Amino acid sequence: MQANSEAFRGHDASTGEEIGPDFPVSTASDVDEACKAAAQAFAAYRATSSEDRAAFLEAIGDEIMALGDELLERASKETGLPLARLTGERGRTVNQLRLFAQVVRSDRWRGVRIDPAMPDRTPLPRPDLRLRMVPLGPVAVFGASNFPLAFSTAGGDTASALAAGCPVVVKGHPAHPGTDSMVAGAILKAAKTCGMPEGVFGHLQGPGNELGSALVRNPHIAAVGFTGSRGGGLALLEIAQQRPVPIPVFAEMSSVNPVILFEQALAARGSALGEAFVGSLTMGAGQFCTNPGLVLALEGEGLAAFEKAAIAAMGDQPAQTMLTTGIRDAYAQGKGVLGSKDKVEKLATGQVGNGKTCEAAELFAVPASAVLADASLLEEVFGAASLIVRCSGRDEMKAILKAMEGQLTATLHMDEGDREAAGELLPILEQTCGRILANGWPTGVEVSHAMVHGGPYPATSDGRTTSVGTMAIERFLRPVCYQDIPAELLPPELRESAKVPNLVDGEPK
Amino acid sequence: MQANSEAFRGHDASTGEEIGPDFPVSTASDVDEACKAAAQAFAAYRATSSEDRAAFLEAIGDEIMALGDELLERASKETGLPLARLTGERGRTVNQLRLFAQVVRSDRWRGVRIDPAMPDRTPLPRPDLRLRMVPLGPVAVFGASNFPLAFSTAGGDTASALAAGCPVVVKGHPAHPGTDSMVAGAILKAAKTCGMPEGVFGHLQGPGNELGSALVRNPHIAAVGFTGSRGGGLALLEIAQQRPVPIPVFAEMSSVNPVILFEQALAARGSALGEAFVGSLTMGAGQFCTNPGLVLALEGEGLAAFEKAAIAAMGDQPAQTMLTTGIRDAYAQGKGVLGSKDKVEKLATGQVGNGKTCEAAELFAVPASAVLADASLLEEVFGAASLIVRCSGRDEMKAILKAMEGQLTATLHMDEGDREAAGELLPILEQTCGRILANGWPTGVEVSHAMVHGGPYPATSDGRTTSVGTMAIERFLRPVCYQDIPAELLPPELRESAKVPNLVDGEPK
Repeated sequence: MQANSEAFRGHDASTGEEIGPDFPVSTASDVDEACKAAAQAFAAYRATSSEDRAAFLEAIGDEIMALGDELLERASKETGLPLARLTGERGRTVNQLRLFAQVVRSDRWRGVRIDPAMPDRTPLPRPDLRLRMVPLGPVAVFGASNFPLAFSTAGGDTASALAAGCPVVVKGHPAHPGTDSMVAGAILKAAKTCGMPEGVFGHLQGPGNELGSALVRNPHIAAVGFTGSRGGGLALLEIAQQRPVPIPVFAEMSSVNPVILFEQALAARGSALGEAFVGSLTMGAGQFCTNPGLVLALEGEGLAAFEKAAIAAMGDQPAQTMLTTGIRDAYAQGKGVLGSKDKVEKLATGQVGNGKTCEAAELFAVPASAVLADASLLEEVFGAASLIVRCSGRDEMKAILKAMEGQLTATLHMDEGDREAAGELLPILEQTCGRILANGWPTGVEVSHAMVHGGPYPATSDGRTTSVGTMAIERFLRPVCYQDIPAELLPPELRESAKVPNLVDGEPK
Repeated sequence: MQANSEAFRGHDASTGEEIGPDFPVSTASDVDEACKAAAQAFAAYRATSSEDRAAFLEAIGDEIMALGDELLERASKETGLPLARLTGERGRTVNQLRLFAQVVRSDRWRGVRIDPAMPDRTPLPRPDLRLRMVPLGPVAVFGASNFPLAFSTAGGDTASALAAGCPVVVKGHPAHPGTDSMVAGAILKAAKTCGMPEGVFGHLQGPGNELGSALVRNPHIAAVGFTGSRGGGLALLEIAQQRPVPIPVFAEMSSVNPVILFEQALAARGSALGEAFVGSLTMGAGQFCTNPGLVLALEGEGLAAFEKAAIAAMGDQPAQTMLTTGIRDAYAQGKGVLGSKDKVEKLATGQVGNGKTCEAAELFAVPASAVLADASLLEEVFGAASLIVRCSGRDEMKAILKAMEGQLTATLHMDEGDREAAGELLPILEQTCGRILANGWPTGVEVSHAMVHGGPYPATSDGRTTSVGTMAIERFLRPVCYQDIPAELLPPELRESAKVPNLVDGEPK
């Protein structure tokens, strides 16, 4: 394989046509070089001060902003996402970098614990024990198609790995190579300005799966961050597990995000809920991990009002350009399969656009008994399709929730009179979901300290983690204990003089 | 398979003879029943208050103490370990339960984070977000042969899973069924006294691997704790990964625990170090995860003095009864293979006992160049065998450390004049080891807050964790975020009135 012998191009999402310029297809030797450079950068990068690392994260944000409208325009062309959405997504991406910089400065992520020596303890003295968290090593990050900025080259995985002190090698998503290239340039510029070691960030791109496989197989890579399909995530997981030295894969994969409508809430505002639901369902052409793909409610007048309003709202929904022809095809096939299932009724179809990559939103309904008989009805259809499950009683609703796979979110619409019923479901939902929300919609994911964007398998490959929010940084850290190490050899944050948050004998100092 | 149709017996470790009484061999239906009971107990157990759960852990400790000398005598017979060692191990086991009870009471493990609502934020308001850690579900624990108390039925994995709120199903090690049965009885008694839900603890035992495989495959099991061989750990890991719903396996597997002797320390006290080294090497017949199986030092007079003293001390070492004939055979084979390798010189052999399961300690030496040519010299031989690697220079030492697999520990013997040399190795060791200690021996593992008994693969299957110390509890927890959930439905620790340690907007309240 020769370096840069091949090229590929992005596509205009709305037409499916190729658009220039050419981008070099990364080769096997590019993978090796990027990973080797990341491994070489690791020693210097992990030793950077909190201040320097935080400044680097902030500089990346500044450089992304400095790309101006050109970035948004390119991203919009490549993804079909409107400029307003991408402006918001850019803000989220930059604010995420800034929030993570704050966390880096706080030094709380270092997780320092000190158990002072007890030389006089009997029968044995206790040594001096000091624990800190250290970065895992170079992290491979896979850009996602549905968030060209916030979950791609400078997205949550990159920000959290860099915050943890891990160099990053990104494999950009081939659906938006121009966007990725611009953002990669911004990161490299920030790295240079901030005096970061060469190799702290590497960028690979190209179509096909072999590139990503080679990246995960590379012995210098210590962990993987991925957001995408279940098939893609599981394939990377298998490669990672079969390495001579297996590595953790943090893959955020699939979720139908059940929305549960309780009786009082439905009675009070069934119509309003139906309309708002369609807004959440069709946002971004339904291409969200947290898209509400399943609605559970008791049959009755309230649900009828909800359905009526949802059907009306669906008719108003313009067909939206999907991210890629591949995603459009998978969506069309998925909703076709769903619609053809026994007992599944098609309630409404959004407007059928004439764009080449447009596909209409669709709403289905099914009796709960059919879902209990056929668990495949609970599988994700990625796009603006959702299934209303009409339950004849609360026991049926509970049975479905217990049969569900792991989920990123569950949503409860309830009024005061519904609280008892909601309270009964909470213990079930806590075991299945990463986030439980009331009287909102799952499609907004706040980047903050208490956010969890994760959940039991198959929502993610490691349900003990989150890929959004500052806790995401912890994925890329591991503990090391220093026993009786002379003070001058201790890392600065473990010395007596350090002003770093810590636990002494298990209690905050 | 009929329940209890078969029986098995323990063995007198010193003679290899069977000893009564009979113990029923757990069947496939026993596995199902225990796991189902654990799943049924989970809802009630995870809802227990911190105080009740802590009292349960303490009661287990009390019931173990109440078993008196009979427990120690049975354990000594089954394992060949002396009563003094087992008395210490019992103290460690009970103190571990008490320390974990303290941590449970502190509520710090709940990891509460609160990001208050910002209703007036623009462009979008922020919802109220509250995060807590919740237990994973029933945990399968595998008892280890080498710690019949501290890493077995009521050992570190059981204590940390119970502390996290997870029911536990133990598969006892078949080498000490009598010890396990007594301890299991103590746990069940404590559970009853404390009013814990039935099924919070289950106990399975029997020879063969099928029992453990069935346990890990059981759909009610949510995580696995294991301490033992690399082969055993990897087999369980594979089963866990191939389940329809994969689960995490925390396996502590193998380590040679390099000991690095620096020049000044060797010059000042080579003889004393050699003698102390043999003490650590032969403790418990070398059957420790942290046994010093590899010594690295620069050739010279200091190392010669070290070797001379070690050789002399080896001659004084009585042959010790090993845990099982299987472990004895594997040890004999392992040291035979090691001794037969090119350039490997046998320096000393301990006394050859005449016990049926005795096997002599052995000390080897090899030039560093041979290790760099044959990485198999760095593999663990479980038992009292160690290999001194004579290095011609520091670069050779560094090269070997860089070639090493993940380790539980690395030990540095150094004087003030050695600090610069030690400092150069620390960044390498931090990437390979879970614990780095100075001027001590790795075979003592303190149970405290800052301890790490873990390390990169293959020391453990998940290098981001520890199996000793209070941080071990975190393995069995995952985060859940509650968004805009009405106060009366929130778990108690997330309410405004809660007196639980927390972070508000990322800072301690």
